[in-house]
Amino acid sequence: MRRGADAGPMPDPVIPTAPERQALSEICDWALRLAEGEGAPKFTAAILHGDAEIARARNEVAATCDPSRHAEIVAIAAAARRLGRRDLSGHTLLSSCQPCEMCLAAMRWARIDRLIFAARRESLGAGFFQFGALDIGDLARASGHAFAYLGGVGEARVLPLYRPQDESGDA
Amino acid sequence: MRRGADAGPMPDPVIPTAPERQALSEICDWALRLAEGEGAPKFTAAILHGDAEIARARNEVAATCDPSRHAEIVAIAAAARRLGRRDLSGHTLLSSCQPCEMCLAAMRWARIDRLIFAARRESLGAGFFQFGALDIGDLARASGHAFAYLGGVGEARVLPLYRPQDESGDA
Repeated sequence: MRRGADAGPMPDPVIPTAPERQALSEICDWALRLAEGEGAPKFTAAILHGDAEIARARNEVAATCDPSRHAEIVAIAAAARRLGRRDLSGHTLLSSCQPCEMCLAAMRWARIDRLIFAARRESLGAGFFQFGALDIGDLARASGHAFAYLGGVGEARVLPLYRPQDESGDA
Repeated sequence: MRRGADAGPMPDPVIPTAPERQALSEICDWALRLAEGEGAPKFTAAILHGDAEIARARNEVAATCDPSRHAEIVAIAAAARRLGRRDLSGHTLLSSCQPCEMCLAAMRWARIDRLIFAARRESLGAGFFQFGALDIGDLARASGHAFAYLGGVGEARVLPLYRPQDESGDA
């Protein structure tokens, strides 16, 4: 897998800003509230630009009967619609749980290059990813280090959401 | 990247059925017609079950201002909606062009394990993929050989669609 595209320089480590920490904490609260009412797992995401929250979303897979409507995908779509453009360069994607491969690629189609999430894959049960032998570091390298990421921010609080295993991993 | 999940047995090679060849040919015709009217590239996809076409779709990224609405994603969503379930096991995904990583993962969220496409990545220009150092074989192995695929069916006819390079690769 190590071919030309992984030759890019490593991006600087991600140090969350205060607005990013705040928004991530809020979407995690939201996921916890959703799980209380509807059961776990629940997934939430947001798009930030500086200290402005552009979009916030939850997983809509079941509600729409569309396997692709993960929280991150819905948030990206909402942000693009709100801004009237598909290029979200300079924005941050926040997620209550490490984005799957579909969502990571969608993030890059939107040219987002900064990602912060709470629950990390290595802390989860099985079933939340499709290309299991590749981790997010492999995908970042395979993108030529086109994005920087930080996982585990506020993880302990949301982990109970993702431990009771939903077989489909997509609720 | 070679960890446990790639331990599954290799699936049998994909030999397209007559209905699959016919539907693939038709969506390629459609992409060619769209490009005549609107310019290239144009992407189309379909979902088949046996000889029944469940859904047919084109890329809707520009039309919806949603970076995730690639033809494959739209076709999967349409099929799931039509059938009233997100599990499309036993269906075939057909595409005029090799699906990107986002669409491959979406295909697996829908439990589709059979994929046939026309234009192959190695025949295209750059810009249609996000994790460029990984090819579809890497992703299939990383999924534990959870799907079988065949690319290049009727490729020559559609290649002109994907050679004139659109920078965004998503029209």
